[in-house]
Amino acid sequence: MFSRPFSFFLSPLLVISTVACAQNHTAASINPKAREGIERIEPPFWWVGMRQHSLQLMVHGPAIGTSSPQLDYPGVRITAIRRVSNPNYLFVDLDIADDTQPGELDLVFSPLHDAGTAAPASATLHYRYRLQARDKDSAERRGFSSADAILNLVPDRFANGDQSNDTVTGFPDRLNRGDDSAGRHGGDIRGIADHLDYIAGMGYTMVWPTPLIENNQPAYSYHGYATTDHYKIDARFGSNEDYRQLVAQARSKGVGVIQDIVLNHIGDHHWWMRDLPSADWITFNGQFVPTRHARTTVSDPYASRTDHRNFTEGWFSEHMPDMNQANPLVATYQIQNSIWWIEYAGLSGIRADTYSYSEPAFLAAWSRRILEEYPHFSMVGEEWSTNPNVVARWLRGKHNPDGYVSSMPAMMDFPLQDALRQALVAEDSWNGGLTALYEMLVNDQFYPDPSAMVLFEGNHDMSRLYTALNNDPALVKMALAYIATMPRTPQFYYGTEVLMQSRKQRDDGAARRDFPGGWTGDKVNAFTGAGLTAEQRTMQQFMRRLLNWRKTQPVIHHGKLMHFAPDQGTYTYFRYQETAHDMEQVMVVLNKNRSATTLPTARFAEILPAGARGTDVLNGQQYDLRQQLTVPPRSALILQISAPAR
Amino acid sequence: MFSRPFSFFLSPLLVISTVACAQNHTAASINPKAREGIERIEPPFWWVGMRQHSLQLMVHGPAIGTSSPQLDYPGVRITAIRRVSNPNYLFVDLDIADDTQPGELDLVFSPLHDAGTAAPASATLHYRYRLQARDKDSAERRGFSSADAILNLVPDRFANGDQSNDTVTGFPDRLNRGDDSAGRHGGDIRGIADHLDYIAGMGYTMVWPTPLIENNQPAYSYHGYATTDHYKIDARFGSNEDYRQLVAQARSKGVGVIQDIVLNHIGDHHWWMRDLPSADWITFNGQFVPTRHARTTVSDPYASRTDHRNFTEGWFSEHMPDMNQANPLVATYQIQNSIWWIEYAGLSGIRADTYSYSEPAFLAAWSRRILEEYPHFSMVGEEWSTNPNVVARWLRGKHNPDGYVSSMPAMMDFPLQDALRQALVAEDSWNGGLTALYEMLVNDQFYPDPSAMVLFEGNHDMSRLYTALNNDPALVKMALAYIATMPRTPQFYYGTEVLMQSRKQRDDGAARRDFPGGWTGDKVNAFTGAGLTAEQRTMQQFMRRLLNWRKTQPVIHHGKLMHFAPDQGTYTYFRYQETAHDMEQVMVVLNKNRSATTLPTARFAEILPAGARGTDVLNGQQYDLRQQLTVPPRSALILQISAPAR
Repeated sequence: MFSRPFSFFLSPLLVISTVACAQNHTAASINPKAREGIERIEPPFWWVGMRQHSLQLMVHGPAIGTSSPQLDYPGVRITAIRRVSNPNYLFVDLDIADDTQPGELDLVFSPLHDAGTAAPASATLHYRYRLQARDKDSAERRGFSSADAILNLVPDRFANGDQSNDTVTGFPDRLNRGDDSAGRHGGDIRGIADHLDYIAGMGYTMVWPTPLIENNQPAYSYHGYATTDHYKIDARFGSNEDYRQLVAQARSKGVGVIQDIVLNHIGDHHWWMRDLPSADWITFNGQFVPTRHARTTVSDPYASRTDHRNFTEGWFSEHMPDMNQANPLVATYQIQNSIWWIEYAGLSGIRADTYSYSEPAFLAAWSRRILEEYPHFSMVGEEWSTNPNVVARWLRGKHNPDGYVSSMPAMMDFPLQDALRQALVAEDSWNGGLTALYEMLVNDQFYPDPSAMVLFEGNHDMSRLYTALNNDPALVKMALAYIATMPRTPQFYYGTEVLMQSRKQRDDGAARRDFPGGWTGDKVNAFTGAGLTAEQRTMQQFMRRLLNWRKTQPVIHHGKLMHFAPDQGTYTYFRYQETAHDMEQVMVVLNKNRSATTLPTARFAEILPAGARGTDVLNGQQYDLRQQLTVPPRSALILQISAPAR
Repeated sequence: MFSRPFSFFLSPLLVISTVACAQNHTAASINPKAREGIERIEPPFWWVGMRQHSLQLMVHGPAIGTSSPQLDYPGVRITAIRRVSNPNYLFVDLDIADDTQPGELDLVFSPLHDAGTAAPASATLHYRYRLQARDKDSAERRGFSSADAILNLVPDRFANGDQSNDTVTGFPDRLNRGDDSAGRHGGDIRGIADHLDYIAGMGYTMVWPTPLIENNQPAYSYHGYATTDHYKIDARFGSNEDYRQLVAQARSKGVGVIQDIVLNHIGDHHWWMRDLPSADWITFNGQFVPTRHARTTVSDPYASRTDHRNFTEGWFSEHMPDMNQANPLVATYQIQNSIWWIEYAGLSGIRADTYSYSEPAFLAAWSRRILEEYPHFSMVGEEWSTNPNVVARWLRGKHNPDGYVSSMPAMMDFPLQDALRQALVAEDSWNGGLTALYEMLVNDQFYPDPSAMVLFEGNHDMSRLYTALNNDPALVKMALAYIATMPRTPQFYYGTEVLMQSRKQRDDGAARRDFPGGWTGDKVNAFTGAGLTAEQRTMQQFMRRLLNWRKTQPVIHHGKLMHFAPDQGTYTYFRYQETAHDMEQVMVVLNKNRSATTLPTARFAEILPAGARGTDVLNGQQYDLRQQLTVPPRSALILQISAPAR
């Protein structure tokens, strides 16, 4: 495979039957560079018992497009054979009947009789293609939900568990820890696996690592968003099997894994780029045209077609060719690839990068197909807009004016994330500060299911929370409390718990620094607590308590919300739900004031039971709420409410 | 009338028939302060031939509530009589049949037999109530539209045409030109009337003066938003008849008048406040509770009822009691009052102040009723939110998630106004500056009719455009060009054309300074041009040409829009419409760069005809658009496009 290390899943038994060539018209004569054989078939294997019976195989090998495939396997038949302009590819559609048994198909590629000469073109090839049994209940797996707490981490910068893969032969982008902005630091799958107890102990129930997929780019490869092989974990992170084991281990500790999938683009060192199936495999026929990022063009009634095309087809960067999903072969390839990883690795969710940059019709098909296969699965898309209308467009159940129908269960809540950060640092006024945060929730009426939205305090693409909030731990606590108690699916960024810093302006290197304790010899170790400052330790403990408390709270997961318009620097809201026996209630007050603030509780009478008491969920302190509540300065108070016996 | 000057429309023939009182139970004994008689009936008169046959008369006079009304007039009958807690009021509902002739009704108020004594309570009173004929085609009048250009002015600060009404007996808030922030400066209706040629000459086709209604408040009365009599023009502005004549004169010059109507509140010196019909005439039973301005509460799925009530019932200020429109007598009173002014004065439109602060069900009824009476009329509401979803809620044809139905034809476009100002002063980036302006239009898909939205460069409540744009005339021209060429109904603020300044932060006094030339002795006169700086003269001429050109352009009034994502500091868009013979097209380029910028025209090929030429609509300069267009630095270029003969 282009002299890259052997990978387990590209090891089907490859049998080349050499057949005498009656004529000189061989594959080699069609493509002078071609070697004999089948270099790969993708997906590398598949499963029986999938809801969708069809499977598109992409077969790559010298002049394979001049052959004719056949198979003989009970329940499986070839329904279509597609040839593209490059004869080194052949696309074979299979139908796999419901009762098909697992096993190996003998795929036979016979030389095609040349139309001109009526003679076979080349040798007959055999490829043993595996159909596996599915894991029990695979189709019924549940994705993430508002009952979860998601940790986003950058694997290269989280923990280096295996120094032997820091630099790998065949991968020219080598370890360079001195370079924050572009170098590889050596973090890997083992590093995550080694710290699953820490992750679970903090209260996270889902982990979203930025992409682990192969990015064999000559430079700036650590981030993972420039795929060079859709079916292979990057060797510097580990193997496919390491990944699969990580997911299984995490699951055993109550933590699901969300895979970060890039549909829009690939790396320019993707193996395809040396031998494209067809010019239209990549947008603009493989020529670099930069996107203007004009994300509104896909629904703007006034947008020019040129701009719309530029957005969905323009390249994210010169080194990131854009997939042309208007080509149905590409679309099916990508849909199958996502399903393959869900089934293979045992995923709990997908985070879809640069979601809206792909062809809208493709996105609709992609999201629909995945949910057809896994009806309770979750995907969350990245639509980096602070306009709720732009984000809501992509949600399942949304009625769009232009009739566009999507099946995405969730989107990242950029509008609320931005409002939260701004609210905490801005002056409070009749329309600014906490009031702007309060007012943002009016848009929830336009989300089919607000609680499915993933509300985050930060991610790998922006300034860190602590930095954005002017290095004020009190504001960080307020942000975390808000994210953990809103009717949303909360997501956090690694290192927030120990107040990691970045620059105010976007600076990826600064925002993706190494997690302390992830590297041998680190003086500070956030996993053990060694060397942390008192402030860091306090924040880590705050978050650990907050998330572990949250885990146990159905009222936070599924309860209703009632909030009260901010008043004098405070913002109060309630989560509540009626149970068979009781009314469960949590009251949250954010207080931005630099002195304690006393709130008369009569204002909350429509929700707060008469004679109610509150218990601080983080430290157990009791509050008598009959008359008033005094909230400490610069704090987030979370109270479990108990009513007097009825 | 509380010793205020006699007003023409309160002069019905008042006949008091004194009838011997058989018992001592007189009106005076019910209310010791009461005098004999009927102090007023509102509406003061009405019309025959209205679509709605019902009319609610509010009768006010000592113990009138203890009388029984009767009438004998062909086509008119009493359908309901309502008494309220205050016996000085009686509400009488009439039905006026279609074929009723104009004339005067003899309304007879007979003493009511006291239930206890079975004896008449007081004297019998007669009131001659006028039913007028309607103006021809009154019902079919057309409101403002995207074909218009609206001028917003503050009458007290525009021009003082009649010094005799600068201070008026009975109005304690007297002339005080030295006080910008609260004093009366003497501007009046005559001042507007005197300068209609200037207004029409500038290209405005509509004028919206801030309220002219009586505001007999002891102080800070010049702004007009604290009504003290719903049926009377403030004497310091002129008389009702002066107003009526202003509207007629303006119409003869092609200028319509939009009345600024305040539904939400009144002044605390309103005559009602001395003798309220009932405690629930005013919200919170007449007690001051300030609103928190939490405008989202009316549709926020999580809002508390307390907050919702506070928003719609809380008072705008201590001196502005809030009307309780949940009381159907109040609601009908206000609806009739609006219709009365439309019919009486001959209005072309209504601007509804603090629109959303009123009871939502009342607003729905108010807007529906006005349009039932005048199907082609226009009202534009003020909803000061930069969230398009919050604004769109109130529009006719909008499908709201909670089913709320409004009939408002238009709302003020605060979201786009804010985006425009920000875009011009902010740095351009992938999501800021002109791009944010471009992206804002994606929300147009959520407006039932974007072109009905009133897009403004400023108004009486915010910093002036020139000041907000850092005193940069080039940016002012760009803003004006944008507002004049978008698919919107454009609105401008008096003095923008001569670069009047204010403070950056809100400062009403600074933003409402006297228009130069409006006062005798002004050294600078913007009406004649005397004393204007070259920069002011240039801007005035720019705007005059722009608006007069706009008047003649159906493609701007009704054409479609196609815009191109901002690129390198420029933003280009086209207005276009197919006519029977031709494609009319206008191309607009905003260039924020400090040097001339050359745009290859190939980017616009999907709209720009091959071989097109452009003519600058303001100076006639010709542009060859076959290859490229060089746009002058810091400018707005508006080109009429002509294609080569076909």
